[in-house]
Amino acid sequence: MKLLRYGASGAERPGLLDAQGQIRDLSAYVPDIAGDALAPNALARLATLDPADLPPVTPDRLGPPVAGVGKFLCVGLNYADHARETGKEPPAEPVLFAKAVSAICGPYDDVQIPRGSDRTDWEVELGIVIGTRAKYVDQARALDHVAGYLLVNDVSERRFQSERGGQWTKGKSHDTFGPIGPWLVTKDEIGDPQAIDLWLDVDGQRRQTGNTRTMIFGVAHLVSYVSQFMTLLPGDIIATGTPPGVGLGMTPPTFLREGQVVTLGAAGLGEQRQRMVQA
Amino acid sequence: MKLLRYGASGAERPGLLDAQGQIRDLSAYVPDIAGDALAPNALARLATLDPADLPPVTPDRLGPPVAGVGKFLCVGLNYADHARETGKEPPAEPVLFAKAVSAICGPYDDVQIPRGSDRTDWEVELGIVIGTRAKYVDQARALDHVAGYLLVNDVSERRFQSERGGQWTKGKSHDTFGPIGPWLVTKDEIGDPQAIDLWLDVDGQRRQTGNTRTMIFGVAHLVSYVSQFMTLLPGDIIATGTPPGVGLGMTPPTFLREGQVVTLGAAGLGEQRQRMVQA
Repeated sequence: MKLLRYGASGAERPGLLDAQGQIRDLSAYVPDIAGDALAPNALARLATLDPADLPPVTPDRLGPPVAGVGKFLCVGLNYADHARETGKEPPAEPVLFAKAVSAICGPYDDVQIPRGSDRTDWEVELGIVIGTRAKYVDQARALDHVAGYLLVNDVSERRFQSERGGQWTKGKSHDTFGPIGPWLVTKDEIGDPQAIDLWLDVDGQRRQTGNTRTMIFGVAHLVSYVSQFMTLLPGDIIATGTPPGVGLGMTPPTFLREGQVVTLGAAGLGEQRQRMVQA
Repeated sequence: MKLLRYGASGAERPGLLDAQGQIRDLSAYVPDIAGDALAPNALARLATLDPADLPPVTPDRLGPPVAGVGKFLCVGLNYADHARETGKEPPAEPVLFAKAVSAICGPYDDVQIPRGSDRTDWEVELGIVIGTRAKYVDQARALDHVAGYLLVNDVSERRFQSERGGQWTKGKSHDTFGPIGPWLVTKDEIGDPQAIDLWLDVDGQRRQTGNTRTMIFGVAHLVSYVSQFMTLLPGDIIATGTPPGVGLGMTPPTFLREGQVVTLGAAGLGEQRQRMVQA
């Protein structure tokens, strides 16, 4: 299933995308795409519905396809080819950092360039959405705790991230720095999460091209790893790192300006489009 | 007012502590101590109640006094005397990092030492609770956005924090690494937030003694500063850093073991007590 949330920001309703590309309303069957609705039995119940029986809707906006995200964790330098691009050694174990959940926005919402920013950058990523509580989970069982996947743009301000005192959170958390979606694609629709093509364009020019097969630490490894440090809960998101081609890695380094348009996509997970605006 | 939440974990009810030290139920007046209930007008409405009219309760447990925390931000190395203790230069601007909100627990709940940990450490801190949305707020108006204050133990695993690949989040986010409370003390009850005594004992031995007057960046500065990087929302918490005396700074460094008891307090904000257990 391709689950989604549609409507005005803060007032989204649950829906799904049917096989014909029609959005249909799920409000009668689930209060929101969040928490307990992400558990395997809840998703299995939704899968028994005939989409043709659900009311078609034509919304003005898609919101983030998951609500109630408690943790928005990200993995740094997790593609062998991207680690090389930054000039850093590939990490011996996953580099984790947190994005503020208030950064989450819809897949087509404008992205705000923060005041004082001159290094706002893009990062196309595969995001994992947790379906059931996970703590001290081994790799063999890790995917049992995954509800599905979604596309993430891990928008980043490089100067805030690296030159403003210590920890990356500061450069990763601005409002609108976390477009997710358009859909939460349930795990059953994604065969191998380590074989997903990713791409990102700025103003129609290809900037990033990658495939999740060059991840240093794969999805099962990451879920297991994070669960050694904290409990993962339904709705938590882990963004799994970005392939090569970020602005910071260009010669010369190149960053986003007001009015530019970023488009990005992942095979099976849909596409995003964001216009850059000044905060 | 001293607002609190009492009852079993995940099923807490809102309450307050009256002038005689009696806990009273607030369920009839507010759904929870969270979100809109933290706005000035909502707090002013609660302040008109006569506590003697509220049902007295004698709960088995106090929970975290704020629910629905979206961001649990912390400030590193924010006491001049603590920065010296760690051997680091005082930072030129606040060092921010994020704790997972799943780490939040009640003030008397057991603290879990993570598996594989040999450096679980303590940090008594003043926590700021945001009452109203704050973005690009200047220092002169910053305190307008504060609902109140609470005591925080920013429990930390030093090896996970510093020797496991990059960012501090990993060592700050284990379940139960964020005891808060016992109360959210509204701003009107705290005169000057830069004149609060803090202390922490391990097994009855004094380990930390400090006063918020030695903060490098004060409360108004921190709220204003964070609001340059992201929007602060009602219920967000900023833990403002710890005074000297953490285990990492002792000679030799000394860390928490199963069965030990940590007690801590802040003038006007109450006391916490946690027993260390193995995760």
